[in-house]
Amino acid sequence: MTTGTSERQVGIGLIGAGSIGAMHANILTTLVRQANLIAVTDVDDGLAASCAAQFGPRAYSTVEDLLANPEVAAVIIAAPPKTHCGLIELAAGAGKHVFCEKPLGWQVDEVDQALAEVRRAGIKLQVGFNRRFDVNVRRVKELVSNGDLGRLLTLHIIGRDPVDVRQPGRDDGDLFLDTMIHDLDLARFVIGKEPMSVFTQGGVMAEEPLDDPDTAVTTLRFEDGATAIIDDSRVSQHGSDQRLEAFGTKGMASIVNEQCDRVSIATGTEVSAAGPSGLPGEPDRLDPPEPYFAKRYLDSYVAELRSFADCILENTDPVVTGEDGRAAVALAWASFRSYRDGLPISL
Amino acid sequence: MTTGTSERQVGIGLIGAGSIGAMHANILTTLVRQANLIAVTDVDDGLAASCAAQFGPRAYSTVEDLLANPEVAAVIIAAPPKTHCGLIELAAGAGKHVFCEKPLGWQVDEVDQALAEVRRAGIKLQVGFNRRFDVNVRRVKELVSNGDLGRLLTLHIIGRDPVDVRQPGRDDGDLFLDTMIHDLDLARFVIGKEPMSVFTQGGVMAEEPLDDPDTAVTTLRFEDGATAIIDDSRVSQHGSDQRLEAFGTKGMASIVNEQCDRVSIATGTEVSAAGPSGLPGEPDRLDPPEPYFAKRYLDSYVAELRSFADCILENTDPVVTGEDGRAAVALAWASFRSYRDGLPISL
Amino acid sequence: MTTGTSERQVGIGLIGAGSIGAMHANILTTLVRQANLIAVTDVDDGLAASCAAQFGPRAYSTVEDLLANPEVAAVIIAAPPKTHCGLIELAAGAGKHVFCEKPLGWQVDEVDQALAEVRRAGIKLQVGFNRRFDVNVRRVKELVSNGDLGRLLTLHIIGRDPVDVRQPGRDDGDLFLDTMIHDLDLARFVIGKEPMSVFTQGGVMAEEPLDDPDTAVTTLRFEDGATAIIDDSRVSQHGSDQRLEAFGTKGMASIVNEQCDRVSIATGTEVSAAGPSGLPGEPDRLDPPEPYFAKRYLDSYVAELRSFADCILENTDPVVTGEDGRAAVALAWASFRSYRDGLPISL
Amino acid sequence: MTTGTSERQVGIGLIGAGSIGAMHANILTTLVRQANLIAVTDVDDGLAASCAAQFGPRAYSTVEDLLANPEVAAVIIAAPPKTHCGLIELAAGAGKHVFCEKPLGWQVDEVDQALAEVRRAGIKLQVGFNRRFDVNVRRVKELVSNGDLGRLLTLHIIGRDPVDVRQPGRDDGDLFLDTMIHDLDLARFVIGKEPMSVFTQGGVMAEEPLDDPDTAVTTLRFEDGATAIIDDSRVSQHGSDQRLEAFGTKGMASIVNEQCDRVSIATGTEVSAAGPSGLPGEPDRLDPPEPYFAKRYLDSYVAELRSFADCILENTDPVVTGEDGRAAVALAWASFRSYRDGLPISL
Repeated sequence: MTTGTSERQVGIGLIGAGSIGAMHANILTTLVRQANLIAVTDVDDGLAASCAAQFGPRAYSTVEDLLANPEVAAVIIAAPPKTHCGLIELAAGAGKHVFCEKPLGWQVDEVDQALAEVRRAGIKLQVGFNRRFDVNVRRVKELVSNGDLGRLLTLHIIGRDPVDVRQPGRDDGDLFLDTMIHDLDLARFVIGKEPMSVFTQGGVMAEEPLDDPDTAVTTLRFEDGATAIIDDSRVSQHGSDQRLEAFGTKGMASIVNEQCDRVSIATGTEVSAAGPSGLPGEPDRLDPPEPYFAKRYLDSYVAELRSFADCILENTDPVVTGEDGRAAVALAWASFRSYRDGLPISL
Repeated sequence: MTTGTSERQVGIGLIGAGSIGAMHANILTTLVRQANLIAVTDVDDGLAASCAAQFGPRAYSTVEDLLANPEVAAVIIAAPPKTHCGLIELAAGAGKHVFCEKPLGWQVDEVDQALAEVRRAGIKLQVGFNRRFDVNVRRVKELVSNGDLGRLLTLHIIGRDPVDVRQPGRDDGDLFLDTMIHDLDLARFVIGKEPMSVFTQGGVMAEEPLDDPDTAVTTLRFEDGATAIIDDSRVSQHGSDQRLEAFGTKGMASIVNEQCDRVSIATGTEVSAAGPSGLPGEPDRLDPPEPYFAKRYLDSYVAELRSFADCILENTDPVVTGEDGRAAVALAWASFRSYRDGLPISL
Repeated sequence: MTTGTSERQVGIGLIGAGSIGAMHANILTTLVRQANLIAVTDVDDGLAASCAAQFGPRAYSTVEDLLANPEVAAVIIAAPPKTHCGLIELAAGAGKHVFCEKPLGWQVDEVDQALAEVRRAGIKLQVGFNRRFDVNVRRVKELVSNGDLGRLLTLHIIGRDPVDVRQPGRDDGDLFLDTMIHDLDLARFVIGKEPMSVFTQGGVMAEEPLDDPDTAVTTLRFEDGATAIIDDSRVSQHGSDQRLEAFGTKGMASIVNEQCDRVSIATGTEVSAAGPSGLPGEPDRLDPPEPYFAKRYLDSYVAELRSFADCILENTDPVVTGEDGRAAVALAWASFRSYRDGLPISL
Repeated sequence: MTTGTSERQVGIGLIGAGSIGAMHANILTTLVRQANLIAVTDVDDGLAASCAAQFGPRAYSTVEDLLANPEVAAVIIAAPPKTHCGLIELAAGAGKHVFCEKPLGWQVDEVDQALAEVRRAGIKLQVGFNRRFDVNVRRVKELVSNGDLGRLLTLHIIGRDPVDVRQPGRDDGDLFLDTMIHDLDLARFVIGKEPMSVFTQGGVMAEEPLDDPDTAVTTLRFEDGATAIIDDSRVSQHGSDQRLEAFGTKGMASIVNEQCDRVSIATGTEVSAAGPSGLPGEPDRLDPPEPYFAKRYLDSYVAELRSFADCILENTDPVVTGEDGRAAVALAWASFRSYRDGLPISL
């Protein structure tokens, strides 16, 4: 058994204590019995200290110090994307298993190098594609795999983030590497085949535009002839709008939005229903305030961390692999190039 | 073959050309091939003339004159409720078949007398319980009869008219004899048994109250133990709200409202959907403007008139009988007495 | 006043009495007071005779004979697409107004020639894009035009026909010229701008494939940066699936499917709701059996014919023009070429 | 500060470690930071030991021993209903605050005696009406209180438990004291007034009947004229069916069921959607398997315990009082008597 695991719990070190890191810390300490959060670090010492105060792990000044703790059997990387591959290599060098947030890296080259290191070290690597653990996604995936929908014809994915999560000064590839990467992975996961070409349209469309593109529509052609359509945006006024629909020769399966609440109001000529989950005003399930994506996807964030801990405790393979992470990064760049050049890209 | 029927069409005389009478005239002349509207009369000559101008029948000054036309094989009675029984007797005396709007009469006694006359004359009598012809009601009735829902436990009926159809100076029994009578009939129709007791609460509740009760809740206990709950009101701000739900030991079947349109709008934190059908602004299907209940139930109004004409042409029994009409009048009065006295009434 | 119009009614000649022609005849004679169907012709004399028997117009053996009737002020062309342009020219030559089913023609060249003839003759020409008259489409169009949704970002259109309407031996362009042409027109109508490029993927995908493509996904880039996505198919097992959703910087408006009925059933772990409108088993509103598209879109078919008659009676411009018809034919061919070549087409 | 509370946490002793007790233990230790579960007892030592092993509190053999622990500042009573009042008196005698599951007691008399003891001891008492903390209920309550719905006319509550939670050998009053008591409390809470009369129909209706009634419909007349209708059953085949709808002179607000998932499937002529939340197969949020009601109402169970701990830490009044608990017990018995006697009961 690797150092840092007891029979029933995996010792976890958290690298990066921003909003997504803090969310993982919260989930780990309340809802994942098979994990024990014992260490945290962040380039911002204040964030690490705050995480330590709230959730109990010991704060470290450097990644190296954290990795030196023998109780740490695995790390969760929730640092900025461009640091991911370097951190994976460090952790692998220290023999620690890795759960890495998406994207697995910023460039395909560095991902390849990191994956080589992972293989060499024999550690487990899981990528943070939490939506694969969403109960609705799993159900549709199963319907597609079983053939219940017949031959898949089209797969529609809507992935729209609320407008106020946009941040100025982002990279041009950000919409693709940070947001669309979830949906590119979902398309591969649900269809269970590889795409052969990608075509993207989009632009800087918002009425108060930032520099990088905020909206894009991507169509992917898969091996078997199925077409996936991804409509992603970062300027949704109507909240976190995340839907999926698979249409095949035998039928159709649709995932509609989670909702803030279940109340509808009819007055005069109109009926008002609740907006999608993830809006301000929706109650938090965990104790500290949750970010909007935790409201929408909490169960899947819990499930992915339980699954990661289980694969270490039971010495099985992670269900989201480094290859999945690499494929998504490659697709995100292909989508970006198609957007930039206005032409389909063959893969 | 009765006078006034050709091989393919029944000659119809309309008695009463107000809003419901005009709607029947409209439907007959556009959507019921097996009928031919040839005569109309109303105590208000202007209404009869207007109906004649719009839909083509000849206007008569008196019921007697209309009944004397040998081309008239059947009459539609859409005059005020308290005149129904007298008109039925007149028509029966003239050997004309009768389609009578609900309520069949205002008192049970006069209904009994009219039914005796109908039997003596050997004419056909159908009562205007159009909702029995609604495709949704028929489907739920079938699920109940087939046993698909198991033993019926409860039946919920919501029957709420838009606030602006209220008229001052109505009889105290109006809510029961005019509105609730539809739902009392529906309960008998869907359950397929007779009620044993009735209990009603309600009152003059509206913020701008008229004299007669505007809202009532009635519970009926049926032979087999099932309970029906009717929630009726004439002050609905959110339009024509007409729903039904049957709950049994094997499952549940629900009829939701028809909607004005199929558009939903999401802006900011709220989602707006269309209100129920029957609201102002909803497009008309027939050419002259339709009353709200025609928007909600047009298909069932068409179906009941086709069915009435067919039963004459094919010499079969009407599917809504005089006994159904009498039972509903008796129930409406029982419900009114329970409301007035605050006690359950045994039937 | 043109020959063949009275003060209140337009005399109509119907050219083509197949399923769509018969539906128009039915609607004209029951629900369009401002029109009078007086003549019909079809290359199949039996179809013309049957239409005459059912709906009352006089049957003619040839188009020329029908056009020679001075009571005919306007014709409805519901003949095969490749005959449309020739028939328009004949009618224009005879000074008759024309309502022409979609597509306006099979090739852009012949459409241009026909439109020149229409202008020369000074007749009115309306194209049968009935969905523009759908109350839901109109409402979304209005929200987009008013700016209620902000700047339009994406427009999704689903247009799937039930599987059993496919016919063998169709042209390769059929999916585009016959089905998708509706949705290409809808995109232009709702967005109110012209597309600059089109990209299409698709194929012969059905499990029991016919020769021509049955499924295609088209993305259109519009002048203002908006992207329209059209997902069309002729092999829908779940009925006539016709939806539309507009997403803009201020919000989103969605049109969901009409449903067969309003009943949902809950038994055990599942809830069953009614399928989309247009399925077998749904009751007909008109008297003879309606084709599936009439069940789904009856109100819009009525509205377009009323509008056509009104524009003649009131001497106004048709609201769907020959130029709209031409643009859609051009787009359908561009979409077909992009499908065939695998490349975006600039317009 | 009471013994057993630190500045930030209340020391909790759990009395009763069956399914509802174990759920509270689970929630307390994972999601309620302001509480510390330190002691547990049950008449069944095995249940206490199992709770201790899973969630960490120390197991005690007797209630007296548990109450003697000075670290215990408050107890949660989750023992059988007929023991509630005696346990409350014991706890009050020991100066411990009490959270008591519903019903507060089995008879009104014993409740009055226990409440006197609570007042004498000056402890806080909260009753486990968790649904008052449901976000949907709170929103409707607010709409009613604010007058947004105008004058309240009717309030419909559906409260149906899945069929397999029935237990043989129950008391005759069980449906009323155990199930309906939630809904009687909800009616008081949402309407914000007291009922004046109650009328109940129901019976032993299930196809495989147990001895006690399984289904009942209760109508309550409130001070202001509003009528509440409660439809409760313990033999729902379609899962945990819990809905509420308030109808007033200005509009209507409805709470629909939570669903197991958000997937709908359309194949052929039918559309299948997910059943209501609380069904087997729905994923658990907490780690050990949750009972069905925790799946449906987890957030409200968390909220009521947070609220209870907060009212101790901040020395405020509990938001669900002993008087609320007493009123519900009195109403449950009135409902039972009305059911038994077939007559309305004045209150």
